[in-house]
Parts: sequence; C-alpha cells; structure tokens
Amino acid sequence: MDPVLQLLLALFIIVVMAKSAGYLSTRLGQPSVLGELLIGLILGPTVLNMLHWPVFGDPHLEETISYLAHLGVLILMFVAGMEVDLEAMLKAGRPAVLAGVIGVIAPILLGGLQGWLSGFDLAHSAFIGLTLAATSVSISAQTLMELQVLRTRVGMGLLGAAVVDDVLVVLLLSVFMGVAAGSSSLLSVLWVLARMVIFLVLAIWLGGKILPRLGALVERLPISEGVMALALAVTFLYAWAAEALGGMAAITGAFIAGLIFGRTPLREEIEHGMHTLAYAWLVPVFFVSIGLETNARALGVSGIPFALIMVVVAVLSKVIGCGLGARLGGFTNGEALRLGVGMSSRGEVGLIVATVGMSSGLIDDLVFASVVIMVLVTTLLTPIMLRALYPRPAGGPQPRPAAEIDQ
Amino acid sequence: MDPVLQLLLALFIIVVMAKSAGYLSTRLGQPSVLGELLIGLILGPTVLNMLHWPVFGDPHLEETISYLAHLGVLILMFVAGMEVDLEAMLKAGRPAVLAGVIGVIAPILLGGLQGWLSGFDLAHSAFIGLTLAATSVSISAQTLMELQVLRTRVGMGLLGAAVVDDVLVVLLLSVFMGVAAGSSSLLSVLWVLARMVIFLVLAIWLGGKILPRLGALVERLPISEGVMALALAVTFLYAWAAEALGGMAAITGAFIAGLIFGRTPLREEIEHGMHTLAYAWLVPVFFVSIGLETNARALGVSGIPFALIMVVVAVLSKVIGCGLGARLGGFTNGEALRLGVGMSSRGEVGLIVATVGMSSGLIDDLVFASVVIMVLVTTLLTPIMLRALYPRPAGGPQPRPAAEIDQ
Repeated sequence: MDPVLQLLLALFIIVVMAKSAGYLSTRLGQPSVLGELLIGLILGPTVLNMLHWPVFGDPHLEETISYLAHLGVLILMFVAGMEVDLEAMLKAGRPAVLAGVIGVIAPILLGGLQGWLSGFDLAHSAFIGLTLAATSVSISAQTLMELQVLRTRVGMGLLGAAVVDDVLVVLLLSVFMGVAAGSSSLLSVLWVLARMVIFLVLAIWLGGKILPRLGALVERLPISEGVMALALAVTFLYAWAAEALGGMAAITGAFIAGLIFGRTPLREEIEHGMHTLAYAWLVPVFFVSIGLETNARALGVSGIPFALIMVVVAVLSKVIGCGLGARLGGFTNGEALRLGVGMSSRGEVGLIVATVGMSSGLIDDLVFASVVIMVLVTTLLTPIMLRALYPRPAGGPQPRPAAEIDQ
Repeated sequence: MDPVLQLLLALFIIVVMAKSAGYLSTRLGQPSVLGELLIGLILGPTVLNMLHWPVFGDPHLEETISYLAHLGVLILMFVAGMEVDLEAMLKAGRPAVLAGVIGVIAPILLGGLQGWLSGFDLAHSAFIGLTLAATSVSISAQTLMELQVLRTRVGMGLLGAAVVDDVLVVLLLSVFMGVAAGSSSLLSVLWVLARMVIFLVLAIWLGGKILPRLGALVERLPISEGVMALALAVTFLYAWAAEALGGMAAITGAFIAGLIFGRTPLREEIEHGMHTLAYAWLVPVFFVSIGLETNARALGVSGIPFALIMVVVAVLSKVIGCGLGARLGGFTNGEALRLGVGMSSRGEVGLIVATVGMSSGLIDDLVFASVVIMVLVTTLLTPIMLRALYPRPAGGPQPRPAAEIDQ
C-alpha cells in the first residue's frame, strides 16, 4: 500500500483510539492522558505491535509518526509557555517558590541516587533524576476543585509551585543538554553556558521587542490565518534555534515563544488555534507514540523492581521536597503534606523530558519504560491520596470529568 | 543536524516565505496562490534548490514535507466539499449546469488532443486533458465583486458552474484512477466501477446517516477538541478508504467527508478549525511543495512550446466549452463569453489532479511543470481579460485585496 495511505490509516487508528480511550478514562474519573497512554502501550510493541502489522509495510512510517509527535510536543510546550501565569506565582508567594524549587531538587537527588545505585554513571543518573522532576498538577487541581478547596492556600500554592516547577525543569533540561554535549573541559562548559545565555537573551529580549509588534502588524494585513502562521513559524524557528544555535532542548524554544505570545493581545486567538492543532490530532499522536516507542515487555522480570522503586522515589521525592519547601515558606504540616502529595503526579512534561533523553542516548529502553509506568501510576495514585487527606464535603457535587481541564 | 531540527527549519522557511509571497501577491492585486506557487518555484530546484542545501542532509526530509503537503491537500478538499453549495447551483439553473458539464468535457478533449499530438498514448493524453478541466473561480469571483457585477446572471452562473466543475472533476479523476489501474478486460473494468459505486453508496448513504449523529454525540461529550478530532479522523479514514477500498483518488474521500459534515450543525466549528489547520501551515506547505517538486528548467527550450500551447488550450477550452454551455442554457453571446473567460483560471484543484497523476505515473516531469506554468499564467491572465470585457464602473471602489476570498 502507498506510504501516504498507510500514514492516513495509522493516523485514523491513533486519533480514534486515543480520543476514545481518553474519554473512557475521564468517565472512570481519571485524566484523559491516562487512557491515551494506556492505549498507546496496547497499540505498541507491548501488546498489538500495530506498526508491524502487514498492512503497514513502509519502513519510514514510524519515523513520520514520531515527527508529527515532535511537532505535537512543541505545540504543547508553546501552550504551556502561554499559560505560565507569573502573577499567580508571585501572589502564591514564598511557600510556592520554595516548594517549586526544593520540589525539583529532591527528585533529581533521589532519582539520581536510584540511578547511581543501579549502576548508571553520573550523567545518566542525573538525567534519570531530571525525568522525575517535572510535575503535572492538572489532575490535582481538578481533584481539589471537586473537593471545593482549590481556592485555599494549598490550592493556590500548588498552582504557583507548578509554574516554578515548569520553568525550572525546562531550564535545567537545557543546561543539561548543553553541558552533556560538550563537557570535555571547563572552557567548553563555559562556552556552552555562554551560548545558552546569548540565545536566551536574544530570544527573550529581542523576541519580546519584535514579536508583539510583528504580530500586531500581521493581524492588520489581509493574510489568511496570518497570526497563526506567524505563531507556528516562530515556534518552529525558536525550537530549531534553541537546539541548533543555543545548544539547549528544542522544547525550551517553543516554551519561550509561548511565553512571549501569551503576553500579547493576540493570546486568545493563538491559544484557540494552537489548542485545536494540539488536541485534535498532534497531542494524541504524541501520547500514543510514547506507547509505540515503549516495549514494557523489555522491562522483563528483572526490570520490574527498578520501575516500582522509581514510582516510590517519584512520590516520596515530591512529597518531601515540595512539603519541605512549603513548610519553610510558612505552611502548617498538614498543608505542606497536601501540597506535596498534590505535586506528586507526573504527566506530559516528564514524558517529554524522557523522550528528549531517549533520543540523546541519556536514558535507555528500560528507564524509558519505567518512566512511562511511573507517569501512569502517579497519575492514578495522586487523586486517591489527595482525597484521603481531605474530609469529603457533605453533599458536595458529583466529581466532574477531568477533561474540563486539559491535560 | 538532527532530522527533526531540519524539518523545523524547513517548515519555518516554507511558512514564512509562502505567507510573505502570498501577501505581496495580494498587494499587487493578484491572488495569494500566485505568490505562494512562485516562491515554491524559487525555493525548488528551478532556482535555489533549498532541500539540497548543506544544512538539509536528511534524505527523508523531502518525503516528510510531501506527506504534510498531502495532508494539506486532503484538508483543502474537505473544505472544498464543505463549501459546495448545491442550492446555489440549482438556483443558477440550466446555464450553470450546462456550462459546468461542457466546460469539463471540452478541456479533456482539447487537452487530450494536445497530448495525443505530442506523442502520448490514450490514457496519458486523457489525463493531461483532465488536469486542464478543474477550474478555480475564486479569483474571477473576486474580480466580479470588484466590478460590482457578482450578483448578475454571469456571476451567479459562474459560482454554480464552478460547483458542477468541482464535483465532476473529482468524480472523473476517481473513475480514471480506477479504470487506469485495472483496465485489462471488460470484466475488470466492471469490477472497478462496481467497487467505486459500492464505496460511494456506503460513504455517502451510510456516512450520511451515521456521521451527523456521531458528531452530535461527540459534541456533547467532555472530549477536548472532540469534534475536530472526529472530523480529521473521518477525513483520514475516507481518504484512505476511497483509494484502498474504492480504488478511487484519496481526495474524493476527503471531499465526500466535507460534503457530509458541511450539512451538519457542526459546520461552523469544523470549518473554523480546518481553516486554521489548512491555511496556517499545511496549505502553504502544499503550494511550496509543488514548486519543490517542479524543475522548470527540466522543460528546456524544447518544452516551452508544449507549456505555451497548454496555456492556450486551457483558456480556449474553457471559453469555448463553458461559453457554449451557457449559450445553450439561454445566456446571450456576451454573457456566455464573460462566463467562459471567468471559468478559465485554474488553481489548487488542477495542481492536486496533476500531483495525483504524477505519483501514479500518468504524467511526467515535463507535463507537471507545464501544468504549474499553466496555473500561474491563467491565474494572471483571467482577471485582466475579465476586466477588459466589462466597462469600468464610474467612481467604483478601489480593488480589494484578493485574500478576502481564500484562495
């Protein structure tokens, strides 16, 4: 069959299965990402091995799907950048900032320790830690909303700490990619850092001056979908430049592009368009492609303890790190515990970090499969743990489906 | 450089150059497709040979871009299907239907004759004729609007005839693909036609029953971008099934999917989303990819007469065919001439037919390059000829940029 036809059939299966599984997942009170990841695992080599069905004979099909998944990741990071609410973070204040910062350091240390004790060298161990650092609070925020406690100190602290977490992880990933690539001498490390700083200054300062004006100009011109074309083109350029020129991760560039456009009057139009682009096909393709690249069977019996320990490390490191930060920031012990538990679910950013690490050879199949399992389990566990820490509201509303907050 | 980075850089260049060239084109009173095609020719092997710059070392980059272009074509055909206004066609009545039908037959005969006299066999000659059959009236409609005569018999006839033209060309292309693939015996031809009929009946009748209900259901469910995901998935499925099961062109499937969703209450939401998806990046990628696949230099000195004759045949066959049909339908000679001239510009559907023919081996590089030139020249000429046939309105408004009607 013609390669294009194979791509069409594969995209049809992926989009329909992902969206159906995501919906079923929300019907069961779980976030849609859980269903989308699980269906990816089922379609992938773990169970059905879809891309090796006789109907899919094109050797480049997997590559093409992975390219589309990469584009989905960039748009996801752009949207994440747009949604970063620096004001909310500042308002949440010291406990949020401390919880965010220590909540990133603790998983890197503890996850790194796990890697180190499992025989990985320093760079690989540190990267394993980094994959555990990225939180995903949408499911926790949804749970707190159901419990009618999102507008408390814990809820606001959670949202603020999540912003700190996002920004820190993206920055640390970039530093890591730069240093890991050229860490042969002190001079090369300095050069790597200098390139990063130059890129960041140019991208944020120059981009922050030029892009809003360019956007306003394009909006006035009679160009069909001009604003969205500009936003996409800048996302592609920033992602390319971040890695090719700045020596950082491509997602950092997309994130910065989102940060800049999120502060222009075009925000609403761009967010709407990017949302369609992302959630109608590219993000489902990304989540399923994670499963397509994961062979959970490769874990084998010997790998299961590693994955299980990673789950424990992931939860404990966030509870301890974020909890400690919140406590130092003035929260009570109970509030600090709740915030730490709320921060312990992982999601797409952790998967993105793992994907970057996988394609750079910084983590192997076993670690990648473990990260996928860790994301699945923490996503399942966090709402349960969080609900256990709160008394049920008397006669409260029925839980609302999680899809109301996008992954 | 990493293949994904190369793709990002290529997409950035393509989107920015296409949109800028399209805008410049509208500033010069031309439709944006003219600029987008020209910049594609410049970026392609004809001038800059972009995909062979040292920075683009990935041998699959061209393939990936061509896949994205294919997706763009399908979405374009879906939108075309959505916009088919059967009521307007019926209202325009007999002259429109006759102009549409004879306006398709004449280019096939005359274009086929050109191919035959140039030494091509019957199948190849007929396909050359078919590439000349697809009209694109958006630039003519825009011109008539500027002249304030769109709401006349000629204007309404033009829009009606264009619908007939669209539907007929899509159907004929499908018949052609089916018959050309298995025309070894009468029995196989009958089997091909039977498959087509079965596919069309199932796709239109069963799809027409199921899809609107499915759409209404999905809209009520808490699925992020569920309606758009459904529309895209159905487009992929229909396109795949049209070719893989029905033995027709994939674009026919996308066109039918658009026809069905265009008659549901979801039309506006889907049209908005598809428009963003199409014009923000995939359609510019398609137009540029045409240029990337065209080597106008391959025409050589010997090929130029063929291309020039094709331009003349393209214009004359529409003027004669559509004019005759309109005359038979009751138009005056003057009205029939104006309608025929208005129908003589070609656009994306002609290019799509040529792309399908190229990948099926039904036309070669020389014919493909000639079709691109024919589209460029007829797009340039038609508004000039049309204006010459109308007296200027005294104190009329300034011409408005063509981008107000999408390509």
